[in-house]
Amino acid sequence: MKYLCKIRYTGTDFCGYQIQPACRTVQGVFEEAARAVFGAPVRTTGCSRTDSGVHAEAFYLTVTVVGGNRIPAERLPLAFATFLPPDLALLRATVVRDEFHARHDVKEKTYVYRIHASRTNDPFLVHRAFWVKQPLDIAAMREAARHFVGEHDFRAFMAEGSPVLSTVRRVFSAEVTGTGSEILFRVTGNGFLYNMVRIMAGTLIDVGAGRKRADEIPAILRSCDRVRAGQTAPPDGLYLSSVDYGEDLGF
Amino acid sequence: MKYLCKIRYTGTDFCGYQIQPACRTVQGVFEEAARAVFGAPVRTTGCSRTDSGVHAEAFYLTVTVVGGNRIPAERLPLAFATFLPPDLALLRATVVRDEFHARHDVKEKTYVYRIHASRTNDPFLVHRAFWVKQPLDIAAMREAARHFVGEHDFRAFMAEGSPVLSTVRRVFSAEVTGTGSEILFRVTGNGFLYNMVRIMAGTLIDVGAGRKRADEIPAILRSCDRVRAGQTAPPDGLYLSSVDYGEDLGF
Repeated sequence: MKYLCKIRYTGTDFCGYQIQPACRTVQGVFEEAARAVFGAPVRTTGCSRTDSGVHAEAFYLTVTVVGGNRIPAERLPLAFATFLPPDLALLRATVVRDEFHARHDVKEKTYVYRIHASRTNDPFLVHRAFWVKQPLDIAAMREAARHFVGEHDFRAFMAEGSPVLSTVRRVFSAEVTGTGSEILFRVTGNGFLYNMVRIMAGTLIDVGAGRKRADEIPAILRSCDRVRAGQTAPPDGLYLSSVDYGEDLGF
Repeated sequence: MKYLCKIRYTGTDFCGYQIQPACRTVQGVFEEAARAVFGAPVRTTGCSRTDSGVHAEAFYLTVTVVGGNRIPAERLPLAFATFLPPDLALLRATVVRDEFHARHDVKEKTYVYRIHASRTNDPFLVHRAFWVKQPLDIAAMREAARHFVGEHDFRAFMAEGSPVLSTVRRVFSAEVTGTGSEILFRVTGNGFLYNMVRIMAGTLIDVGAGRKRADEIPAILRSCDRVRAGQTAPPDGLYLSSVDYGEDLGF
């Protein structure tokens, strides 16, 4: 039996999604709960690998159970609620065909990067946004973000040490919204390189702070040179917001 | 020198506002920071006394300094930032006349009570909303809230053990908004009895869950009987949202 599960978590107290020994990970905690629910070990595959501190409003993973209890998908959220901690929730589940792959079958992913631009701290945004201690030029950031849209080689926006076959990705939309101190960068694409959204966010913050010009983005993209892009913005501001599999899965 | 300070805090890790020995309180932490900033002890008076776990988007207190460093009000937010923890921030400050009283001079206060009504937990709302594990009838809650508006004896909505001269208060507005799982109760009044907003919220939840009818509220008010109202909803959902002193203080 193979389920596709939609989960939500705050990343602050997890060492990222992917299971690791001696570390509290989303996958590790989820698999432990699944073992209790199904009375049998399970195999899981996630749609992505979020880093330590990164949040997910909607993250998808498949759960393959061999033997164990047979539980209708619609009863899984309540069944898991007993075994999951407050910072991780199973929102919905559905049964999928055996060939369904939680990562390979993704058509679109949307990330949101949340910035708090203000001289003063906001206690409600601690660990939930990146606090940039100065006002930012939102119009300039909006203009800069537009240059990310389209199919580009995003090598300049990739962290080292992540082997991939191709660094070309297609970004469908990239928008900066907000007024005053609360700024959101929302980007949708067919895939993202390692740390790509956080480096995009760091670069947009450089533009907002006047350290880079919006019209420099095309040249940074063409250079394929990581040092020309901005810093990797911290994980606290990053949210995996939605995932689209290009078919109606009943979510 | 007497300053009026606008502060913001998440209440989760504080034993409420009011200073107490051997307890981490907002007033205690703030006064300690103030002593470091001014180089002299200070006297503070708050606009209210929030309980343990209750949040404040905007809380006002006066800080009276005798001797010590003379610091322009507009520089206080940055000066305090060094000494305040992440869950407490000084947003703005202004100088007020010596007779100004942070509590007695309040004309209106607005509280928000946030409810998460869903069978599944939302990790982003842990300690930030009251999780009611069932859907609620928002239209019925909205109708019930209307009955709170006006001048009433709110004795039925007051926790025991809080001596006051009068239990009559005037509520200027009381509104329930939201769609689906996220529900907000926003109430503005000239003053609130001990736990009054939390008991109102608990009563509205009874109405939303079908345990009470909206049109029972007037009779509950008239009864002045605490046991006829609903339970005291937990502090996590309560936010002091704004305070109005009826004059332009430059905030």
